[in-house]
Amino acid sequence: MHNPVTVEVTRGNLVESRHRGMAVVVDGSGKVLFSAGDVETGVFPRSACKAMQALPLVESGAADAYGFGNRELALSCASHSGEDAHVDLAAAMLAKAGKDVEALECGAHWSSLSQPTLIHQARTLDKPSALHNNCSGKHSGFVCACAHTGIETKGYVEYDHPLQQEIRATMESLTGSAIGYDNCGVDGCSIPNYAVPLKNLAHGFAKMVTGQGLETARATASRRLIDACMAEPFYVAGTGRTCTKLMDIAPGRIFAKTGAEGVFVAALPEQGIAMAVKCEDGTTRAAEAMISALLARYVEKGSAEQSALSSMANRPMKNWNGIHVGDIRVTPF
Amino acid sequence: MHNPVTVEVTRGNLVESRHRGMAVVVDGSGKVLFSAGDVETGVFPRSACKAMQALPLVESGAADAYGFGNRELALSCASHSGEDAHVDLAAAMLAKAGKDVEALECGAHWSSLSQPTLIHQARTLDKPSALHNNCSGKHSGFVCACAHTGIETKGYVEYDHPLQQEIRATMESLTGSAIGYDNCGVDGCSIPNYAVPLKNLAHGFAKMVTGQGLETARATASRRLIDACMAEPFYVAGTGRTCTKLMDIAPGRIFAKTGAEGVFVAALPEQGIAMAVKCEDGTTRAAEAMISALLARYVEKGSAEQSALSSMANRPMKNWNGIHVGDIRVTPF
Repeated sequence: MHNPVTVEVTRGNLVESRHRGMAVVVDGSGKVLFSAGDVETGVFPRSACKAMQALPLVESGAADAYGFGNRELALSCASHSGEDAHVDLAAAMLAKAGKDVEALECGAHWSSLSQPTLIHQARTLDKPSALHNNCSGKHSGFVCACAHTGIETKGYVEYDHPLQQEIRATMESLTGSAIGYDNCGVDGCSIPNYAVPLKNLAHGFAKMVTGQGLETARATASRRLIDACMAEPFYVAGTGRTCTKLMDIAPGRIFAKTGAEGVFVAALPEQGIAMAVKCEDGTTRAAEAMISALLARYVEKGSAEQSALSSMANRPMKNWNGIHVGDIRVTPF
Repeated sequence: MHNPVTVEVTRGNLVESRHRGMAVVVDGSGKVLFSAGDVETGVFPRSACKAMQALPLVESGAADAYGFGNRELALSCASHSGEDAHVDLAAAMLAKAGKDVEALECGAHWSSLSQPTLIHQARTLDKPSALHNNCSGKHSGFVCACAHTGIETKGYVEYDHPLQQEIRATMESLTGSAIGYDNCGVDGCSIPNYAVPLKNLAHGFAKMVTGQGLETARATASRRLIDACMAEPFYVAGTGRTCTKLMDIAPGRIFAKTGAEGVFVAALPEQGIAMAVKCEDGTTRAAEAMISALLARYVEKGSAEQSALSSMANRPMKNWNGIHVGDIRVTPF
């Protein structure tokens, strides 16, 4: 199946590059309200599924035991830029469980998601630690979940570790898609990630925001995580980042989360729908344009929100001198 | 026309992302030895055509008048990383013509092509200047060409400036493709860039390395620029960069130059052939894999060069912990 061209990058009067992609919008019952391209073949959600992976932190009671509020829960679902506030909060989460950076198994890296942050880090650090890893909030949540429930934290990134078994069961239940060795890949931060059809990924998020088909405890934990992200968008990504900007457009009414290799999920809880996109070639700029365009279709027509979302779906590109040289624009996919 | 999938990015046992692309190999007579995808529709060569844009610097006599050797000529064709040696040499070129950074119209930016260089810049600079722009060598060459021939340097980036007129005529002659307003876009560094079919772009480079169909002066100037790049690969790109690594594989026998939005050109002067690729979606990792694979097909079978090129066409991806998580690999396109 050929996935449609969903995003064009222009220069002068010509199209310079084209991105193909897949997109789907689903409600809590699993009804597909819209789809484009192949939404039936497994794709790795990567960091787009972090809110699902954070459920054991809440469901285990660890989040309550350690007094975590919206910021900590948002950071547990984050691919953050490694700004000081992100790093400090991850360290504080670990400290609540009597742990520190040594407990993290995600690896260390300089900020790869924000150039201003990388420049700041270069000026203030000899080298980054695992706390600067964009996944350090998620991993701190993992460590806290293990510590609270008395599970050995060492090796928490391994396929057979009890925490990863629990995450696997949670994701299988939410997405309704079988997961295991066959569709497993190792993520950038070393934990298992499972390829599921885009339609199932979106349905999982639709269940999280509506509670449909979920036991009460899971429905409550799900909304708590989604609501925390919407309440603290900075802690889900960071200054100038797309997830943060999308959620800032309509506080409390848009959930959005990016994943590597061109994945993006979003939800409009008031409307009980969720959506997921994947750029076939893995490019972030295209995924950002696609999810913005898709959100724009489902918010109120003519609203300021719709206008802001459309501006993110179709935006000018400027060169080093600030000259407008072309545009990133969505097709009517 | 659907361009074929040329590069796959895997994770675990699955293909996570796919890149489509176009590729062509041409000899000095213009004979197409190989092609895949649409090589007849115009694509912006972007920085891949810098060696063509540098011809006036040599043909005007400016390069000789200012005593430029291989390093200066290589830097004139470069998309450099902004390492200190690049920046210093660009400043020295301008000084030869009695000019300085104020003469550059390319705009300033932090290194966008090398994270280690960006970190070094952040630690040693308040902010970058136009000398740090990856195109500063090309622009310094432009300024020198104008200064030597007595043309007003101010406004040298404009479409109607005599230098850009000369570059336009040079590129039209080399590529055999009409260029003008209709296929013009403004490049990142503010000069005009012209979309030409990939086949014509490759033919232009085949003419440059063989001299076929060129007047003696242009043939000599062309080989001087190509030879300078092959003699000083560091000055064409920088530490760890793909252009530099490709040319280091077979010193004096491989020319390679990247361009933004997934373009790459290369030549094997001894064999009298040149090649050009474009990744449909504009992604650099795919263009790098494609040009490496194409070069590997035309060097000696079973040689160390072929092995090194194949390793760049098909390479493992490691995560933050150094774990092998997948591969970037070319299809048999």
